[in-house]
Amino acid sequence: MTGPTGCASRTVATRILGLDPGLRITGFGLIDVLGSQLRYVASGCIKTRDGELPGRLKVLLDGVREVITTYAPDLVAVEKVFVNVNPQSTLLLGQARGAVICGAVSCDLPVAEYTALQVKQSVVGHGKAAKEQVQHMVQRLLLLDASPSPDAADALACAICHAHGSQGLGAIAGIGTRRRAGRIQA
Amino acid sequence: MTGPTGCASRTVATRILGLDPGLRITGFGLIDVLGSQLRYVASGCIKTRDGELPGRLKVLLDGVREVITTYAPDLVAVEKVFVNVNPQSTLLLGQARGAVICGAVSCDLPVAEYTALQVKQSVVGHGKAAKEQVQHMVQRLLLLDASPSPDAADALACAICHAHGSQGLGAIAGIGTRRRAGRIQA
Repeated sequence: MTGPTGCASRTVATRILGLDPGLRITGFGLIDVLGSQLRYVASGCIKTRDGELPGRLKVLLDGVREVITTYAPDLVAVEKVFVNVNPQSTLLLGQARGAVICGAVSCDLPVAEYTALQVKQSVVGHGKAAKEQVQHMVQRLLLLDASPSPDAADALACAICHAHGSQGLGAIAGIGTRRRAGRIQA
Repeated sequence: MTGPTGCASRTVATRILGLDPGLRITGFGLIDVLGSQLRYVASGCIKTRDGELPGRLKVLLDGVREVITTYAPDLVAVEKVFVNVNPQSTLLLGQARGAVICGAVSCDLPVAEYTALQVKQSVVGHGKAAKEQVQHMVQRLLLLDASPSPDAADALACAICHAHGSQGLGAIAGIGTRRRAGRIQA
């Protein structure tokens, strides 16, 4: 498991663990939510090497459980994965996602699910945002000195998406939206 | 969790847990292997109700762990699932299979994987056997009084497949194979 660790102290009501599942790389990101304020806690990746599937799923399961034990989040937000053109890839990704969710539910944490579209709409303001835009907005919203890695950024974005939803904020008004003919295009 | 429980006493070297993963119904079946003899231990199903995916995956994870705690198998044989025509179904099935495998690896058990083709070839003798043939052969090989349910039969068949493979028996010679023009058609 790799990734920077930031401040892990608890002074806020809700700590959200965002997860971006993948068989090779699963990104994770934790934020604290205090009212309308978001604070970065930590982020990184759980990586699996080539090898037999059961062993790789165990790495993901144990990795998510280790993150939860270390940072004690209150809930987990998991990104819904793409249905790939290749059915075998879809099956592998599904199994990885199953292992990642099992890591959360085995710690008795509630799990919310968000599509990539929902995450991008919430963080960038429109659903077709590029990875770089997500990274940029995550850095800006969490006041980070540097841009997080793409996998960590997606995981942090998923956590931010849940924070916005649970605060009833929805998408960040005015950021990344385009007004055309009097209508906001999300 | 439902299903008949048989003799759970241990007098043999190897106990195999076979699993046939599914999001709605995951079949399980346990056999003991003593030399070339197979003995039925128990079988049944772990069922999940409609609802949120994380909760259903938890039922599968906890169910597999409960079976392992109850019957203390030495290893697990899991059937590889079909890639469905519907990508969403493939994704759901993949997540269920991920949860089922996590149940096994979280108990530190080794996991072997077999395709439906391998299982049918090993138990019935050819890869295109119907479900009823699998049920019939499982009943016959394990000397059961009645035919197991289709899900339990598939799980038991997967365990038998592993037993045959680990004994170097391969497919059961002569059962369900057709000899034509001097060539065995599997």
